[in-house]
Amino acid sequence: MIAVDWGGSSFRAFRLDAAGQVIAQRRCDQGVLSCRSGFDQVLAQQLADWDEPLVVMAGMIGSRQGWRETPYVDCPASLAQIAGGLQPLPACALPGREIWIAPGLRSTVAGRCDVMRGEETQVAGLLPDLGDAVQWICLPGTHSKLVQIEQGCIVDFSTAMTGELFQLLREHSLLGRLMQPGQPDEAAFDRGLDDSAGSDGLLRQLFAVRTHGLFATLPAASLASYLSGLLIGSELRSRPDGVTQLLLVGADTLTAAYARACARLGIGASTCHGEESAAQGLYRLARIRGLRG
Amino acid sequence: MIAVDWGGSSFRAFRLDAAGQVIAQRRCDQGVLSCRSGFDQVLAQQLADWDEPLVVMAGMIGSRQGWRETPYVDCPASLAQIAGGLQPLPACALPGREIWIAPGLRSTVAGRCDVMRGEETQVAGLLPDLGDAVQWICLPGTHSKLVQIEQGCIVDFSTAMTGELFQLLREHSLLGRLMQPGQPDEAAFDRGLDDSAGSDGLLRQLFAVRTHGLFATLPAASLASYLSGLLIGSELRSRPDGVTQLLLVGADTLTAAYARACARLGIGASTCHGEESAAQGLYRLARIRGLRG
Repeated sequence: MIAVDWGGSSFRAFRLDAAGQVIAQRRCDQGVLSCRSGFDQVLAQQLADWDEPLVVMAGMIGSRQGWRETPYVDCPASLAQIAGGLQPLPACALPGREIWIAPGLRSTVAGRCDVMRGEETQVAGLLPDLGDAVQWICLPGTHSKLVQIEQGCIVDFSTAMTGELFQLLREHSLLGRLMQPGQPDEAAFDRGLDDSAGSDGLLRQLFAVRTHGLFATLPAASLASYLSGLLIGSELRSRPDGVTQLLLVGADTLTAAYARACARLGIGASTCHGEESAAQGLYRLARIRGLRG
Repeated sequence: MIAVDWGGSSFRAFRLDAAGQVIAQRRCDQGVLSCRSGFDQVLAQQLADWDEPLVVMAGMIGSRQGWRETPYVDCPASLAQIAGGLQPLPACALPGREIWIAPGLRSTVAGRCDVMRGEETQVAGLLPDLGDAVQWICLPGTHSKLVQIEQGCIVDFSTAMTGELFQLLREHSLLGRLMQPGQPDEAAFDRGLDDSAGSDGLLRQLFAVRTHGLFATLPAASLASYLSGLLIGSELRSRPDGVTQLLLVGADTLTAAYARACARLGIGASTCHGEESAAQGLYRLARIRGLRG
């Protein structure tokens, strides 16, 4: 089968053998929000020389802005419940292919409402190896997800705007004006982590990026690292009570930064490379649903 | 004399009589960051038919990006100390005018470092009426300032990025995509204020703007009011211990929103229209320094 992780800004496809092993992969920048032609054309072009008929997709492609909106499945959700939410596209959507789109997840625990689309398939790829104890998975990114797992179910989760706020502040705010490009500065990152502890709150803490720049108490090339430390520190400090151990899933540079932050904040952390977990998750969901390539 | 409040995005000039009363005023959008010609040309043009020779200016015009960088005066600072920091431009800067620029303020209390440029002249305009007791003044805006006053001195202050973050999130973030223009919605604003109370932190709370939009639990035209409530609530909740009463100084719509937030959060608040307080402050500083028009 072919697994596709089609998010807002990128498209990734994985060709899997019958045992679910990735035998080829491909990516392009034609995300749902940046797609310059029809979704069918992009998909046909990207999969041109892969002849497996079954294609299972996850991510923003299943949102209101995507190809077909698939309803959210509510938490707590097992793999079987998520698999039950897979929706087929009409056979005519792309000749010769049988296309399914995974549902997103919704959590309304404790009066809050939160959603994810795409990350749930990454979690699905990891779930069978996690055992029955309560576990917390953190998937850092534009919208960082903190997911609570128990007995093979996604019980609850929440989203932090950490990555998007970092980009916004660096590119569009007064704070970004004094920044210079540079290598990551671990000391500045740690200082940001420490400064995120105060009762003065994130809105006040952020302004220190400017004063460090104005008075050169940090090099201009280190201000982005300091900002990153403030934001990641703020995210991790506002985790639910009782979270003392995290499984960090994602790209290497990002999970490394989060692992450093966890160590400094006294949170236990292990790391898992997240590149292929979405593909593994889609494979599992397809098997549970009884889909065969 | 003529008082000029020249910030990043706007220019405002006030013509004052000998007693410090505003007899005329003028504004334009040629802020320091948006100035399309030289500062001297803009000033000459704006003051063309006002013949008072003495011009005293405050705001970003005194920053590194401005006409001449004037050093910060450190807190605690009295009016006399701020007046002592006024810097003259060379006589040739603008023929027929004697131009002075007010210093900014810097506070390094408790290891933090914070700065302001412009707001200190607004405070200077109010100081003589405040008495000797400790008071807290909040000047909402792009960068909201919370200023501690005691015995006629500015003792300390801090900056919250509230207004800038609101603009950034509305204009450039995923949260802004679901927003529609609309009248301020007080119920949505209150809900944002209430939701800013949680221990889940601002980075997670912000994502509720998206889910309220996705599931239409708030009208699209009310999402901006909800976001505003979240941010102002977050700012006010992270005030220093012991702040139970605020003097709100600024534009009417903004101080009204902050007054509503204070009432809901149990903070006493009085409001002062801030339009002319910068002019009053520059007049007082000029008098203390012994400058005469």
